[in-house]
Amino acid sequence: MLPVDLPDTVREALSAPLVDQHCHGVRRDDLTRAPFETLISTGGLPAPPGTTHFDTPLGAAIRRWCAPVLDLEPHVAPTVYLARRAELGADEVNRRLLGAAGALTFLVDTGVESGELLSAAELGRFGSAVADEIIRIEQIEQDVAEVAEAALDYVDSLAEELTARAVGAVGMKTVVAHRCGLGFDPSRPARGSVLAAANRRLSEPKEPVTDPILLRHLLWTAVDVARERGLPLQVHAGFGAGGAGPHLADPSRLTGFIRALQPMGVPVVLLHCYPYHRQAAHLADVHPHVHVDVGPALTRGAAGAWRAMDELLELAPFHKQLFGSGCAGVAETCHLGAFFFRRSLGGALKTRLDAGEWSTADAARVAHMIGSGNARRVYRL
Amino acid sequence: MLPVDLPDTVREALSAPLVDQHCHGVRRDDLTRAPFETLISTGGLPAPPGTTHFDTPLGAAIRRWCAPVLDLEPHVAPTVYLARRAELGADEVNRRLLGAAGALTFLVDTGVESGELLSAAELGRFGSAVADEIIRIEQIEQDVAEVAEAALDYVDSLAEELTARAVGAVGMKTVVAHRCGLGFDPSRPARGSVLAAANRRLSEPKEPVTDPILLRHLLWTAVDVARERGLPLQVHAGFGAGGAGPHLADPSRLTGFIRALQPMGVPVVLLHCYPYHRQAAHLADVHPHVHVDVGPALTRGAAGAWRAMDELLELAPFHKQLFGSGCAGVAETCHLGAFFFRRSLGGALKTRLDAGEWSTADAARVAHMIGSGNARRVYRL
Amino acid sequence: MLPVDLPDTVREALSAPLVDQHCHGVRRDDLTRAPFETLISTGGLPAPPGTTHFDTPLGAAIRRWCAPVLDLEPHVAPTVYLARRAELGADEVNRRLLGAAGALTFLVDTGVESGELLSAAELGRFGSAVADEIIRIEQIEQDVAEVAEAALDYVDSLAEELTARAVGAVGMKTVVAHRCGLGFDPSRPARGSVLAAANRRLSEPKEPVTDPILLRHLLWTAVDVARERGLPLQVHAGFGAGGAGPHLADPSRLTGFIRALQPMGVPVVLLHCYPYHRQAAHLADVHPHVHVDVGPALTRGAAGAWRAMDELLELAPFHKQLFGSGCAGVAETCHLGAFFFRRSLGGALKTRLDAGEWSTADAARVAHMIGSGNARRVYRL
Repeated sequence: MLPVDLPDTVREALSAPLVDQHCHGVRRDDLTRAPFETLISTGGLPAPPGTTHFDTPLGAAIRRWCAPVLDLEPHVAPTVYLARRAELGADEVNRRLLGAAGALTFLVDTGVESGELLSAAELGRFGSAVADEIIRIEQIEQDVAEVAEAALDYVDSLAEELTARAVGAVGMKTVVAHRCGLGFDPSRPARGSVLAAANRRLSEPKEPVTDPILLRHLLWTAVDVARERGLPLQVHAGFGAGGAGPHLADPSRLTGFIRALQPMGVPVVLLHCYPYHRQAAHLADVHPHVHVDVGPALTRGAAGAWRAMDELLELAPFHKQLFGSGCAGVAETCHLGAFFFRRSLGGALKTRLDAGEWSTADAARVAHMIGSGNARRVYRL
Repeated sequence: MLPVDLPDTVREALSAPLVDQHCHGVRRDDLTRAPFETLISTGGLPAPPGTTHFDTPLGAAIRRWCAPVLDLEPHVAPTVYLARRAELGADEVNRRLLGAAGALTFLVDTGVESGELLSAAELGRFGSAVADEIIRIEQIEQDVAEVAEAALDYVDSLAEELTARAVGAVGMKTVVAHRCGLGFDPSRPARGSVLAAANRRLSEPKEPVTDPILLRHLLWTAVDVARERGLPLQVHAGFGAGGAGPHLADPSRLTGFIRALQPMGVPVVLLHCYPYHRQAAHLADVHPHVHVDVGPALTRGAAGAWRAMDELLELAPFHKQLFGSGCAGVAETCHLGAFFFRRSLGGALKTRLDAGEWSTADAARVAHMIGSGNARRVYRL
Repeated sequence: MLPVDLPDTVREALSAPLVDQHCHGVRRDDLTRAPFETLISTGGLPAPPGTTHFDTPLGAAIRRWCAPVLDLEPHVAPTVYLARRAELGADEVNRRLLGAAGALTFLVDTGVESGELLSAAELGRFGSAVADEIIRIEQIEQDVAEVAEAALDYVDSLAEELTARAVGAVGMKTVVAHRCGLGFDPSRPARGSVLAAANRRLSEPKEPVTDPILLRHLLWTAVDVARERGLPLQVHAGFGAGGAGPHLADPSRLTGFIRALQPMGVPVVLLHCYPYHRQAAHLADVHPHVHVDVGPALTRGAAGAWRAMDELLELAPFHKQLFGSGCAGVAETCHLGAFFFRRSLGGALKTRLDAGEWSTADAARVAHMIGSGNARRVYRL
């Protein structure tokens, strides 16, 4: 599935086990067509009447590249695919598809855990990989808000809980982009304003936090812990289902916060970023502590994924790029994330080799760096 | 002109008659060089001294692909092209070029009508196609403002006129992007503020409306009518000659308004969108009622058009993409819009077939969907 | 190094001497590894521990395409490259690399001059080219601020100094994008507010000016001089090391200022622009006085540079495109800027010729226009 005529060393480097630094749980149960379609959609809604979410780049890729993993011919109809999926059962499907990703390590965002989803440990077991935890700070805030009795209690508990949860984790993640956008005031908010906002927050503790003051307080508290423990901070950027507009998730808007973090030695990992991945590449180029992973754009771009990889490679230092499938909901996204990562990077390397731009040794070395080496360094694996 | 080595079924699907869902009238008269150059320019101004608007992607494409339709060799000099155009006469030129587009149906924005331009019915007749009407709401507002005598009269007449004009139409269109940008407050404005703004408006009724309150009122009044009659709302986004900056026409900024429309079942069709077509694709991916057509970018991108198509296909569901030439001013833009649409989509399909990503049957099916099937569904043709 | 199978006339046009309209001085001294790495980085900082700035697109290109100019094999290790550089000595290295660019004329931004850097005249001498001066208005403001004794003196001296310095120059340049962004109020500021801001300015005259009022005053004073002398105004846009975020340097935000300049006949040249070069192409398409040069994106994009060129060619009129290497710090950037310009444009032309889109004569003509002809016209060389 890699481009033909790649030198053996490059092919081997691309085929080597990956560190998938951006995963979520996938459903543990058998899925009928309606929930499966909703799970493979970005918006989480059914397709309009007369249409199907299989008529998307991701849907076509599932029929093409996941079908053979389930012993089907490529391009089978959705009904055939889903019937075979049911026949094999969720465990076997998950085992096959997670295993097909060829990952050595999953770094799992545990902020979306529920009984329906495989836990981080289970993801690892099904995928024959080590599973480490990335804690999602907005989820921890939610847990704290739901039990805090007063603003002071909220503030103290938040710091304690972040510290406690960080013990077993290899990184932290924020989804602030889809709560208030990335253009927030980068300074640490004053304690008085935090306490006032916390009071308001505690009147509706079940709602996801969207108050910029509390989100900033959460971020800075997380940064304190990350600094103490040497953990990177993942920041989701670019397209996502929430928020007041995709432009508000342009990582350019994070520049002030990135600058503020620079002297503290907390690595920042920009996740997804599409279609602002050139901006992310620039931030990784200029700031020593910034890294970038365009992964989910490859998973969802599928047959058209290679261009996002190519655009990232226009400017991003090779030692700043990471791989993450963004795997979520169904195990197909894990396999396809790894598949299109290898295929896209392979295509970019082949172009450079054919044009006489890079040496074979460099191409193999860069494939290793992006596939696993950089993640090992950044997350101290 | 399609990529070679396409399977016959795909070639046939690409060659099938199109629904051109975004057209304007073209000049009915013979054109000398100066007005022709101005008509093919984006800015509507003469080229600077020592230069010519033929030295653009569109100008090169006219010499290459329209010349043979007028029995000339490819790449003829502009003077030769224009001499032949004059020799044949505007009627014959329009007949040949509109017919060469191979359209089954034109959906014509009648908001730019003037005696100089072919009417919708004439476009259809010259192009051997059915012509249906898209009403431009800002033009209807203009008509109302010029005769209204007081604010109350303005508000009542606007609703009546939109209702009356919608009877014969298959859709509505707004150019609010180039009046106040797409970042307007998405809520319906209060009646008091509308009446106050209408009073100001009536002191300068000949000017195009730019007041955000009145534009929002116009949009919401149009939405009421669209909802009642089951009509889609076309929204021009991306580059255009007006407005305070192209970034203000990024469809991302429309997210709040799109969300507000979602429960109402009014389909939204994002037109043009370039260079924010990835953002438009995302909105179409997330929101069940949003569709996207990158057409005019293909017409003007010409030899470089294929990349915009490719980028759209990275994320846009296949059932959400439409074709529109954006044809305006001269019939060349109708032929070239259809030509580069077929050529670009053909290239994208060939890439997927060659890479083993899609089946031939899927490629043919998707070509039919984007070329005409989706438009039939959305516009209930 | 050009694409194979290009027609001879196109090959000759691409190989013809260039006008490099955007250069800065390069270091005159021998460089050890640490300063060399910092000079080839965008951020001007050392690479993080365990990494090297050679692991970037630019670093790979230096090893590939500059090594042979220094008689080394392609792809040599950084240590070998730097040892050979030291062996030859800075003068010989600069002579070889600046000469390899094949430029007829350098237009040199003299606003970054220092004893460490070759002067404009020296750049020309080493590169066997004519060297003309572009004055950087923010540097002139700095010079004035450091000696002015009062606000009135500041205002008068600024106008005098700009007038005096313009005498020997062929153009002016502003880096306002990285001082306050391009979204500044486009109107000329009132004299009273300028004097008040100048008073504040004179309390910290050693700092770079960032006050939007003073930057606008500086721009408008420069425009007066440019208009008087028929000089173009270069505006850096897109990525750069400074500023509060790359999105603030989107040339879209300059639309109001561009409109204000249109009646004055002052040509505007948008520099760099990446990744907003499609926006720049649109502005050049719509406004008769706007031109665009994506040069530094080609230098830094290196093996991936061609896509930025391709994207520019989607919309930019051929008579509005210029070439500039953005050469800075080390002479490698001059050679690579010219190299990737020729290679990228050559690739774009070959694609169009192979697809039957353009004639050979047009391809050669456009190569001449972009490589030197347009610059001659705009700068009256």
